[in-house]
Amino acid sequence: MITNTSSLTRLVGELKKLPGVGERTALRLAFHLLKSPQNLTALADSLLDVRNRIRACSVCFSITEDDPCSICTGNRDNGTICVVENFQDLMALERSNAYHGVYHVLEGAISPLAGIGPSELRIAELLERVGQGIVNEVVIATNFTVEGEATALYLTKALKSLNVKVTRLAHGIPLGSDIEFVDAATVQWALQGRSEL
Amino acid sequence: MITNTSSLTRLVGELKKLPGVGERTALRLAFHLLKSPQNLTALADSLLDVRNRIRACSVCFSITEDDPCSICTGNRDNGTICVVENFQDLMALERSNAYHGVYHVLEGAISPLAGIGPSELRIAELLERVGQGIVNEVVIATNFTVEGEATALYLTKALKSLNVKVTRLAHGIPLGSDIEFVDAATVQWALQGRSEL
Repeated sequence: MITNTSSLTRLVGELKKLPGVGERTALRLAFHLLKSPQNLTALADSLLDVRNRIRACSVCFSITEDDPCSICTGNRDNGTICVVENFQDLMALERSNAYHGVYHVLEGAISPLAGIGPSELRIAELLERVGQGIVNEVVIATNFTVEGEATALYLTKALKSLNVKVTRLAHGIPLGSDIEFVDAATVQWALQGRSEL
Repeated sequence: MITNTSSLTRLVGELKKLPGVGERTALRLAFHLLKSPQNLTALADSLLDVRNRIRACSVCFSITEDDPCSICTGNRDNGTICVVENFQDLMALERSNAYHGVYHVLEGAISPLAGIGPSELRIAELLERVGQGIVNEVVIATNFTVEGEATALYLTKALKSLNVKVTRLAHGIPLGSDIEFVDAATVQWALQGRSEL
């Protein structure tokens, strides 16, 4: 017995499916919501709202309420496509305020161990977009992990034949870092990519 | 901008109201739910289900779907009432499998600083239950905090005039404790309450 009421037990069960939420936390969250019925209703409503309104943009596969999304239809440089693994990465790039092109969300990265090959990602759609001829540059912004690098390598090969400039985000020392504590591979990349002042 | 879509931003805002959930965690939970629409729907449904079905038991003020609750209507010793601050405390006592009477949930404890006096709690209802004459013993199981102790003191005074036995849960060394690390006040209580073997 988690609780003596089936609906509360079911809610605790659903909350436990969230990442980082165990049984104790789920119980705490459930009792917190029980104490404030307004918050409980607002949370349920906003969940249903998200389910009903959020979809993938048919152009860039970003998350959106209107299709195509506000970035695809906005006043952006359509000649540059930045390829990211997921929407969270897109948001991080948007927060930098340094990118003015459009995006393409792959919805993952190539990972043979997890059974994700190129056909499970939005790579065919990317090649089709680039093949239409208005794209000058593809900025590959997949993560700097084994999966992200493998995806970058695969994309570079696939895009080269389409006669488009392919670039990758720079490796280097993160802002605010103490060089003493930066890993050797990053220092190596930072040295190779050094620029004249 | 948290996200570029208003419904997702609203969901993140609602998740942030949960205890221990900040903006980063709320975003992580929101994206997790977005990726599994079944879980999202199930969570929303179970929230609405809890809102519609859970109420306070009209006898003991415990949380229940059926009024009176399964403990009040079950095969329990109605001559013993255990007084707890909230439903979570009731669950802890039920987990012990050592109590066979009924409960009374106060819905809080006396706390002058928080503006909670005896009239904000279910104390009048407790006195009315005890006044009906079938109760032999009231076990006070409020927390061993300043507020809980103040509530226990108040209840003891109020119940004494009703000619009923009033008891309190025992203080002492918790199971599995190293006496070296137990606080002095607890050791003092454990000594005073020592029993012959």
